[in-house]
Amino acid sequence: MHRIEKSFISEENQQYITDLNKDFDYLGEKLSRSGLDIEKLTDAAVKFQIAVPSWGTGTGGTRFARFPGVGEPRNIFEKLEDCAAINDLSACTNSVSPHFPWDKVDDFSELKQQSDAVGLSWIAVNSNTFQDQKDQAHSYKYGSLSHTDAATRQQAIEHNLDVISYGQALGAKSLTVWVGDGSNHPGQQHFQRSFERYLESMKKIYAELPSDWEMHIEHKMFEPAFYSTVIQDWGSNILAAMELGPKCKSLVDLGHHAPNVNIEMIVSRLIQFKKLGGFHFNDSKYGDDDLDSGSLHPYQQFLIFNELVDAEARQQEGFSPAYMLDQSHNVTDPIESLINSAAEVQRSYIKALLIDREALYAHQTANDAMMASSELKKAFNLDVSPILAMTRYRAGGAIEAIATYRKSGYRQQAAIKRPSTGGNTSGIV
Amino acid sequence: MHRIEKSFISEENQQYITDLNKDFDYLGEKLSRSGLDIEKLTDAAVKFQIAVPSWGTGTGGTRFARFPGVGEPRNIFEKLEDCAAINDLSACTNSVSPHFPWDKVDDFSELKQQSDAVGLSWIAVNSNTFQDQKDQAHSYKYGSLSHTDAATRQQAIEHNLDVISYGQALGAKSLTVWVGDGSNHPGQQHFQRSFERYLESMKKIYAELPSDWEMHIEHKMFEPAFYSTVIQDWGSNILAAMELGPKCKSLVDLGHHAPNVNIEMIVSRLIQFKKLGGFHFNDSKYGDDDLDSGSLHPYQQFLIFNELVDAEARQQEGFSPAYMLDQSHNVTDPIESLINSAAEVQRSYIKALLIDREALYAHQTANDAMMASSELKKAFNLDVSPILAMTRYRAGGAIEAIATYRKSGYRQQAAIKRPSTGGNTSGIV
Amino acid sequence: MHRIEKSFISEENQQYITDLNKDFDYLGEKLSRSGLDIEKLTDAAVKFQIAVPSWGTGTGGTRFARFPGVGEPRNIFEKLEDCAAINDLSACTNSVSPHFPWDKVDDFSELKQQSDAVGLSWIAVNSNTFQDQKDQAHSYKYGSLSHTDAATRQQAIEHNLDVISYGQALGAKSLTVWVGDGSNHPGQQHFQRSFERYLESMKKIYAELPSDWEMHIEHKMFEPAFYSTVIQDWGSNILAAMELGPKCKSLVDLGHHAPNVNIEMIVSRLIQFKKLGGFHFNDSKYGDDDLDSGSLHPYQQFLIFNELVDAEARQQEGFSPAYMLDQSHNVTDPIESLINSAAEVQRSYIKALLIDREALYAHQTANDAMMASSELKKAFNLDVSPILAMTRYRAGGAIEAIATYRKSGYRQQAAIKRPSTGGNTSGIV
Amino acid sequence: MHRIEKSFISEENQQYITDLNKDFDYLGEKLSRSGLDIEKLTDAAVKFQIAVPSWGTGTGGTRFARFPGVGEPRNIFEKLEDCAAINDLSACTNSVSPHFPWDKVDDFSELKQQSDAVGLSWIAVNSNTFQDQKDQAHSYKYGSLSHTDAATRQQAIEHNLDVISYGQALGAKSLTVWVGDGSNHPGQQHFQRSFERYLESMKKIYAELPSDWEMHIEHKMFEPAFYSTVIQDWGSNILAAMELGPKCKSLVDLGHHAPNVNIEMIVSRLIQFKKLGGFHFNDSKYGDDDLDSGSLHPYQQFLIFNELVDAEARQQEGFSPAYMLDQSHNVTDPIESLINSAAEVQRSYIKALLIDREALYAHQTANDAMMASSELKKAFNLDVSPILAMTRYRAGGAIEAIATYRKSGYRQQAAIKRPSTGGNTSGIV
Repeated sequence: MHRIEKSFISEENQQYITDLNKDFDYLGEKLSRSGLDIEKLTDAAVKFQIAVPSWGTGTGGTRFARFPGVGEPRNIFEKLEDCAAINDLSACTNSVSPHFPWDKVDDFSELKQQSDAVGLSWIAVNSNTFQDQKDQAHSYKYGSLSHTDAATRQQAIEHNLDVISYGQALGAKSLTVWVGDGSNHPGQQHFQRSFERYLESMKKIYAELPSDWEMHIEHKMFEPAFYSTVIQDWGSNILAAMELGPKCKSLVDLGHHAPNVNIEMIVSRLIQFKKLGGFHFNDSKYGDDDLDSGSLHPYQQFLIFNELVDAEARQQEGFSPAYMLDQSHNVTDPIESLINSAAEVQRSYIKALLIDREALYAHQTANDAMMASSELKKAFNLDVSPILAMTRYRAGGAIEAIATYRKSGYRQQAAIKRPSTGGNTSGIV
Repeated sequence: MHRIEKSFISEENQQYITDLNKDFDYLGEKLSRSGLDIEKLTDAAVKFQIAVPSWGTGTGGTRFARFPGVGEPRNIFEKLEDCAAINDLSACTNSVSPHFPWDKVDDFSELKQQSDAVGLSWIAVNSNTFQDQKDQAHSYKYGSLSHTDAATRQQAIEHNLDVISYGQALGAKSLTVWVGDGSNHPGQQHFQRSFERYLESMKKIYAELPSDWEMHIEHKMFEPAFYSTVIQDWGSNILAAMELGPKCKSLVDLGHHAPNVNIEMIVSRLIQFKKLGGFHFNDSKYGDDDLDSGSLHPYQQFLIFNELVDAEARQQEGFSPAYMLDQSHNVTDPIESLINSAAEVQRSYIKALLIDREALYAHQTANDAMMASSELKKAFNLDVSPILAMTRYRAGGAIEAIATYRKSGYRQQAAIKRPSTGGNTSGIV
Repeated sequence: MHRIEKSFISEENQQYITDLNKDFDYLGEKLSRSGLDIEKLTDAAVKFQIAVPSWGTGTGGTRFARFPGVGEPRNIFEKLEDCAAINDLSACTNSVSPHFPWDKVDDFSELKQQSDAVGLSWIAVNSNTFQDQKDQAHSYKYGSLSHTDAATRQQAIEHNLDVISYGQALGAKSLTVWVGDGSNHPGQQHFQRSFERYLESMKKIYAELPSDWEMHIEHKMFEPAFYSTVIQDWGSNILAAMELGPKCKSLVDLGHHAPNVNIEMIVSRLIQFKKLGGFHFNDSKYGDDDLDSGSLHPYQQFLIFNELVDAEARQQEGFSPAYMLDQSHNVTDPIESLINSAAEVQRSYIKALLIDREALYAHQTANDAMMASSELKKAFNLDVSPILAMTRYRAGGAIEAIATYRKSGYRQQAAIKRPSTGGNTSGIV
Repeated sequence: MHRIEKSFISEENQQYITDLNKDFDYLGEKLSRSGLDIEKLTDAAVKFQIAVPSWGTGTGGTRFARFPGVGEPRNIFEKLEDCAAINDLSACTNSVSPHFPWDKVDDFSELKQQSDAVGLSWIAVNSNTFQDQKDQAHSYKYGSLSHTDAATRQQAIEHNLDVISYGQALGAKSLTVWVGDGSNHPGQQHFQRSFERYLESMKKIYAELPSDWEMHIEHKMFEPAFYSTVIQDWGSNILAAMELGPKCKSLVDLGHHAPNVNIEMIVSRLIQFKKLGGFHFNDSKYGDDDLDSGSLHPYQQFLIFNELVDAEARQQEGFSPAYMLDQSHNVTDPIESLINSAAEVQRSYIKALLIDREALYAHQTANDAMMASSELKKAFNLDVSPILAMTRYRAGGAIEAIATYRKSGYRQQAAIKRPSTGGNTSGIV
């Protein structure tokens, strides 16, 4: 198995530890002035984990082209190697979300053994009814779970049931359903009938959901359909989740909304109605750009975590969202982007923990917009990098994760071990 | 009372009737080729009525300026005169929606007599908790129904109850609630608590709603609040309506959505969940521009009516939306804009009636996107102007409504009868 | 060669000609009331031609999937067959725009002979530096004409020069340059330096442009790059065109703008500054959706033609834009979509010819917004379908183009003659 | 004169100075590890000044309502008092931008004396042709500099010349021209002719511009006009500036763009073509929301300063933009918002100075997107608050500006000294 040695990471950390200790101590002192305990924050950071999508380890692309990198993983075992490397360095990504049939193997127990060996677990299995597979009886060109043809819907339902069974073999506990169903022309689909068919199909899947599982519905405004999408926004999403039952919740992908939409408010609404299932973190400027988390709108990410930490603090009923990255890395080494993005999400979480909630509530009650806003900014402006680095250090990860990764030569070795097959193994494009 | 004489309209119609008959006959023959009966369509058009907002008769403005026209109505009685003129000419706007306290009078029975005399009824009373009135105990600067202060919320609740009583005096049957509550700064308001307070206040109003009334909630993405709004989209709207009960429904204003959003799909969802209360028709390019209905996106308006006529055809349970214009006329004579806009909405309705629904369903079932789309376009491309004109003619309105209005000298006479007070009587700005 | 027989089209027309004559005569009479001559309009329609992109004949796709149709063209000769079928039926698409290297052949004279034989000419050659070709020395992963590496830029320049030479062999007279150059991360590229390198490369291509050629720059807001694009909008486009010289102009693709942007105003600006090179027509709701022209926003398309016809009427200096479709047909038969879209563009042109420009100018001068707006709507509301159908009929095309195409069995025969290669020959995904 | 005593500020600073020194020293040490000198950064911060708009000191509003605060300034002298208070505390806002006729006085020398006395200078005079003033001969309802009527245009030109003369009396050196000219209906205005008239008018103003003055054009996508605006984007802006001459440049208001637009790229383009005149800083989520600078998108603001500092570092020819706030404070004390916003802009500037430009260029040249992006993030993540606070402290301002302001009782005293006139003195609504 292709891995970065713990000892190597540990040696690399030596050059950074003195400065880190200095920065950590200073930050601890500064935080203590506001009554915050840096050790508690670091403990919270150690516990914060965000899942990595198996397909994120390959280079992504657009409808125009894909420019592959070297040493790309050619199957789920190699993807698992990359996920292990990511977790070994970042120390905050201890689970993997697989996608089927991309990650289907004959022997799931072998895969489970392998993941156990590298300290990774499996969460959130994903079904795929937005592409046609070779030798598939019915095409998804015109939809899957909402298709006008009953046989096509049945095929899509059965695929989802298969995916659940794969997930059970791997120890996963939730199914994420995203479909590309929709239309490109006004009139092409009957909105209500499509949605009714979708709900009918989903009920059949829900009926077979293991008792300790959750089902997460993902909404998306557009793409691959460019006029309408069956679950186009959080409104349709939550209505579907309510129709289906308590084990069904809504999943928020940050890139799946209309321009200018206040996503943190949607998060709050889902929390309030006990329907927040989880997140697909990424960043975007135009559409579902799937850019690195926090690379464009770090403050928005922080505001989302403000809602999450607030719900946590209020011990809001039914609140236990799953955190996951979902990005397309077109111009970077996917391992680097995933390491970096995981840390950026973690950064938002830690910053949100700094917010003085009592003070904030008091400002809100007094309608003191300036002080309420400043309370958030005060937390955001603080540089919590030392906490992130110390968290990695203490958990056996790399203080400087990207630098250590580059120095390890992991990618160069992968390039040798994994000669290009010429094909596209990343799933997307 | 300042009115346009029926005899004048009738005389003016003479110059147009020959051509109209010719066009109507030709269209009748053409429609009959597709099995459509122009008389039935004309009957449907005669029945189609859309309400006019009292405040729409004054010139609107922006936060930068308002450029008043001449002869603007100075009170609800003069607004009623203008609404009568609009209906006399357009023959499809037989009701008025009042706004309080703008339209409050001491003696509602006098107002009711006046409206009866001109053949207008009252629908959809609107409350106003987005402005402070002189001598008001509590300011709405930081919210109304969702305000952190209980006394302010109570004041807003009581105002809504007052508005219901005014509406009862006028024979109205529904209350439209739009609030400006929201925030301009991240952190300023606690999203969940604000929404909870809003719901709590609304429940108190709902409890007092007369048994034969409906209550309509209006959502809006932004403005006057520029970071968050308590009912920001149809998702929050329908959840609130579901919490409140069967007499509460959602109202769709076409200008209150995020860019690119598929509004016809939202209409379908609200129909499906029996929560479509009605519409505020207008058009927009950027935000809540409140432009003349159909002036920019006539095909979108048609697609919305495709949904409405479809629901009508399917006899969808709980379907009886209220239609109303809600526009701000900054550069036109408001009377002209309202006449024209009412006809444009009526145009979309008639065109949607032309759609061959059986054929459309067949194409949808066969996933024949091209033919389904063409079915809609075929109906849209037909020029139904002769039906609209004949509808007006038969109902005693003006074949050429704008030209007849201009020739009547109504505005010039109003300019004399209603000298400017220097103030702003249109409510907005 | 696979073609639809003229005689077949002619026979099919028989069933429609009686009704068409009736409709055409009525419309002629109606138009004459406004002083318009239907014969002149029909002549203008006959002259209106819009080019078809060779790549548009294959089924398109998204980054998620492509669902091919049957009988797809496997090379430029088969694409040419499809373009001939489109023109035979629609009678308004007598030219083809090729894309290289997708349409590269060893013997361009053979291709030219073939196109001459079916009555098609070649216009607007397109270069491709947004994909890597097999055995290409330098990758375009990080840009082409603006790449930081001089050798990569040189390779892209030479490709464009090659494309010009292919175009010369085919008799084309313009080069369209669209690049995917841009970035996905803040900081990834130096905006100014990238643009300077782009300009430097373009100058080298411009220097080699044949004297009777034009060069058209296409701007695009995003995709494939998701943070910045080197020619992101018409501002950068026109500045580049001005830097390059009089033979360089800007090309407008309707799907390449920011949400809410007023595209007809951009068209006006480009006309005013003598830099409107041409159009890529399509429709879109969210991004570069590449939907069928006029399928979503027919009024916007009409408003664009209002600008074009106005410039024509004013004999604006330097005004001779090239019209072309550029669409991705994911759920329809591409031939049907191209036939239909060409007619929709033609429809907008004819409607724009109906506008009474003298009256419009008078209303504009008088700031009579209502009458100015109504002048446009009056033209738009008229159903000019009889003119379009008569234009096709007189030019030997099909009165009912889609129905005739379906009845011809063209696609079914293509399915037999062109067995799927399993690959993607449409260029895009 | 109503002021906050220097001695009071100085006393208040005492409680913060120990912690500030500690934080400043630590940051100095940390920065030195990267070769950065905190003293040089602090010097740069001291020199960084951003102008305050006179109209920003009053409470803003929307077209729906304005909720005034207490103690609002009733004239330019009282606005000047507030600007002095802002600068006394923030120490980075030593100039004021006046708006005419709002700030017109009979004796400008008296006003100049007053501003000299409080250490403020005047920059960037603003003309107002988007509102009608009492007794104005011609209305701007349908435009000003681009109006179809020559007399109206002449009136607007003369007003601008008057404004220049007022500016000369106050020692200002630039004129900012923003007009509301545009249309609400397709067809209402002829785009090209409107723009030609605008240019003709502007040329007459430009001809009278004092030799050491600049003229800045402000573009805006929409509002108050909701279909088209004569200077709708940076494209029209720069073309106008190029037509007018070297003393005319483009001004960027952050809230005046289409959704999703990359503003930092526009800034780069204006720099490259030597046409960046300056900024109106604010923040926005939906439209021209005029929210506090950096309150929503601090990273975007930083990316803009990345461009500015880069141009400064490259000593780009013709680069000397003017920095100004332009906000509407609807729910906060305007003085607090202006203090806070000035500091947020200053924060972005300081952070942009931290960027290792040599390293960044190297990453850009190597197309190392990850490291380039991280280089920016590294600078952004650092908390430079100690530099900002130390800058204020050393310049005689307040370490904790908002807290000190609140404790000073300035607003409460203003409430007594400036009883409400019941009117609106803020200019906007």
